[in-house]
Amino acid sequence: MNISYRLADISARLGGRILGDAEVRIFQIATLEKAQPDQISFLTNSKYRAQLACTRAGAVILGEADAEATDLPRIVSGNPYAYFARVSALLNPLPEAKPGIHSSATVGAGAKIDPTASIAAMAAIGDGVTVGAFSVIGEGCCIGANTVIGRHARLYPHVVIYHNCVIGDNLIAHSGAVIGSDGFGIAMDEGRWVKIPQIGRVVIGNDVEIGANTTIDRGALDDTVIEDGVKLDNQIQVAHNVRIGAHTAIAGCAGIAGSAVIGRYCLIGGGARILGHLELADYVEIAAHTLVGKSIRETGSYAAIFPFSKTEDWRRNAVHLRHLDELAKRVKALEKQIESLKGKEQ
Amino acid sequence: MNISYRLADISARLGGRILGDAEVRIFQIATLEKAQPDQISFLTNSKYRAQLACTRAGAVILGEADAEATDLPRIVSGNPYAYFARVSALLNPLPEAKPGIHSSATVGAGAKIDPTASIAAMAAIGDGVTVGAFSVIGEGCCIGANTVIGRHARLYPHVVIYHNCVIGDNLIAHSGAVIGSDGFGIAMDEGRWVKIPQIGRVVIGNDVEIGANTTIDRGALDDTVIEDGVKLDNQIQVAHNVRIGAHTAIAGCAGIAGSAVIGRYCLIGGGARILGHLELADYVEIAAHTLVGKSIRETGSYAAIFPFSKTEDWRRNAVHLRHLDELAKRVKALEKQIESLKGKEQ
Amino acid sequence: MNISYRLADISARLGGRILGDAEVRIFQIATLEKAQPDQISFLTNSKYRAQLACTRAGAVILGEADAEATDLPRIVSGNPYAYFARVSALLNPLPEAKPGIHSSATVGAGAKIDPTASIAAMAAIGDGVTVGAFSVIGEGCCIGANTVIGRHARLYPHVVIYHNCVIGDNLIAHSGAVIGSDGFGIAMDEGRWVKIPQIGRVVIGNDVEIGANTTIDRGALDDTVIEDGVKLDNQIQVAHNVRIGAHTAIAGCAGIAGSAVIGRYCLIGGGARILGHLELADYVEIAAHTLVGKSIRETGSYAAIFPFSKTEDWRRNAVHLRHLDELAKRVKALEKQIESLKGKEQ
Repeated sequence: MNISYRLADISARLGGRILGDAEVRIFQIATLEKAQPDQISFLTNSKYRAQLACTRAGAVILGEADAEATDLPRIVSGNPYAYFARVSALLNPLPEAKPGIHSSATVGAGAKIDPTASIAAMAAIGDGVTVGAFSVIGEGCCIGANTVIGRHARLYPHVVIYHNCVIGDNLIAHSGAVIGSDGFGIAMDEGRWVKIPQIGRVVIGNDVEIGANTTIDRGALDDTVIEDGVKLDNQIQVAHNVRIGAHTAIAGCAGIAGSAVIGRYCLIGGGARILGHLELADYVEIAAHTLVGKSIRETGSYAAIFPFSKTEDWRRNAVHLRHLDELAKRVKALEKQIESLKGKEQ
Repeated sequence: MNISYRLADISARLGGRILGDAEVRIFQIATLEKAQPDQISFLTNSKYRAQLACTRAGAVILGEADAEATDLPRIVSGNPYAYFARVSALLNPLPEAKPGIHSSATVGAGAKIDPTASIAAMAAIGDGVTVGAFSVIGEGCCIGANTVIGRHARLYPHVVIYHNCVIGDNLIAHSGAVIGSDGFGIAMDEGRWVKIPQIGRVVIGNDVEIGANTTIDRGALDDTVIEDGVKLDNQIQVAHNVRIGAHTAIAGCAGIAGSAVIGRYCLIGGGARILGHLELADYVEIAAHTLVGKSIRETGSYAAIFPFSKTEDWRRNAVHLRHLDELAKRVKALEKQIESLKGKEQ
Repeated sequence: MNISYRLADISARLGGRILGDAEVRIFQIATLEKAQPDQISFLTNSKYRAQLACTRAGAVILGEADAEATDLPRIVSGNPYAYFARVSALLNPLPEAKPGIHSSATVGAGAKIDPTASIAAMAAIGDGVTVGAFSVIGEGCCIGANTVIGRHARLYPHVVIYHNCVIGDNLIAHSGAVIGSDGFGIAMDEGRWVKIPQIGRVVIGNDVEIGANTTIDRGALDDTVIEDGVKLDNQIQVAHNVRIGAHTAIAGCAGIAGSAVIGRYCLIGGGARILGHLELADYVEIAAHTLVGKSIRETGSYAAIFPFSKTEDWRRNAVHLRHLDELAKRVKALEKQIESLKGKEQ
């Protein structure tokens, strides 16, 4: 990797205020602990200020409050964490994919592949599929008939998108992600399950990222909708007819059950479960491993986690959970008895 | 999509009683809210009766109790939900797959592929595999040596089935499903794990559906068994030597640990965990996100969910869970003291 | 399967003490219940001694304490469970893969594939990849540029390893596993998420097994590290910059959040969640479905599971969890009142 920029170049592109030597040449970004003299580091939280003293970094990104916390060449930014992200992207551009269709890929009738797009080996593009400009479809990806993928998508190897889905610009989808599989719709009839065809689509906005092995089911009748800017980590399950509001971020292993409607700018923790047909307001935060069993109308932070302890302590305490109601009643009875005794005292 | 049926055609095929104009022509099925005049809708729960008044649907499916709740042309069925499923299947047949083996697929020695079956591009069929009549093996699927797949299977792209598995008729398997991977069997010996070969198979009955990215491990010595009519949603983990009884349905992200035996007609909620070597009776329902740590011998509904609340409330309450035993003892002590005081009163 | 060994052959290779006829010829291993006269079985726990009486097995593996519990030909071992694992491996060797590169595989420029390695159909090997001696890369696997895979690896079909990863010897990776996908790194800036490039690698030691559909993200700046002998079951999520200590075993569906450091020889139960930036000491055991929200410095067994019950009982009891703090305060108030009453009594 031999891309490099002077501090002055970085600031010219990304803004921020330079203090110290603007000519320092930067080849990579690294943590304060690991950075070398030709690398830039960053301080995004004043409480780690002490680490500044020991770093070998050639320059540092930091916020206004820490502007004078070091003598190193530095860029001061109102949002040092986002600035770090942008510097890292500058220094680590994605490898370019060669435009064109690999000879081992299959492309269905009527597919419209932009000439700037790249279709890798063993990819299977269905009939009538559209792939927009500069999009990269990785090795072994399968795109079902009539699905539309916008511009600048990057599908890592082995992403599967079923038929008739609609995907905006700048999608990033990691390996093993499955988009548009059938929702879990079954009706019991005389002792047998009857499958309910899933004829809705998955509709995904712009600037969405989907993690490895995450699954998003197509709608039963209407569509499953992922709005602009939604970020999904790995192994998330999004059931049919869910709507996820713009710029909501969901951590790994979370599950969203059918027809749930999640607001905008929500943050949902790892392994959380949102039950079906619920609504979450905008800006709701759900703690990891929490089940949400009722709609949340009010912005805020919500949790439901059983605190862990040594197994023998847990066992001794948890046994009472099966008798909490009785315990509460016993406390109520005690309160009555006390009142009665106090009455007699007087 | 230009398939269409008159109400009379539908009733002739699927039964039910027509009220109103039997000549209405139906092209698609939709919700009461979205249905157009050339579409049929459905009311499966009387509590949504009010929506009937506003629908633009050309016809409606409903139950006996709601037969007179609208003047629209309608089909009255004893099970309107299952009827809806069947009408949807009638109007939305799966696209037919062309019989034959795609030139890019590989087929091992001695494999028996029925001439009516379809093997898509980039599929890899191992030695000695059997694929039954009318089965469709999607793009990039891998079928291990000597596995037998019955008739009318539909494997979406990128399903992997390991060697020696046995699968009945009408399997639907969604993308990313893995069937027959090694169970998690390890033995500790002098500070090192020794792998226990997994030499059992996965045996799957008829009419089973397996969701996207669901995994079913092969048995360690005996087989892992999925009985007829089992429906598995996405991202479910079924460990080695599990047996799932006929017509049981399991929602997304659930995990069934090794050697658990699940009864027939069970309903297991999303993210639920069934520990290993347990037995669940028939017709047991497990709530979402519930861990089952003991066998359940009695039919019924079971749950274990920590109720969520605002994070500050949760924190204030949850801290007591580590002292519940002490709290219970304090209540007991109070009861004794009260008894003693009351004794003195008398 | 016609591999067979006399008891004497087995003992010569694997050690252990033979009692009874050492000439018995063994073709397979099976449970006590299912074993046939040409098969060997095993007793690893004295409490199942009774089953010895009924077995039809031709020979048995057992521990010193049970050495005289049967008259059958037998091998006595200090660790009968590990001995069983080794006998099973002896009787069930993996099918050999033909060395060489399948004609449908693609191999990038500068890739170094050992001549003894096997690259199956539809595999895609990136530029500069190294595949060590005797390694088997299954159908449809994708290996990203410059990744190094050691000797004797076995990748089942459809494993994806991204670029620049480093993998030791003897890796077993099951279908759908994704190694090296981007960690979930995003920074909020003026209402939009900015992606943080994930430029670290995944570094995996020797003798690691990775289950089906498990995902291991690459590091943000530094590496994600899986040490020697780690065993991961199916559908586990390992986030960026996690370190998992040597010989730790993790059961299915567990999730390890970013930068968590797990010690050596830990056992983590199915569906457990380890939050980010925590440390777990060596030899820590975490129960299934338990969330670990704080570092654990002390070896031992930890749990946090809500005990399940009939749904109506659960509902009646769980409602009090939202008022536990109030209940505790009421108990405290009662204690004060009792003290006050007792004071007046005296």
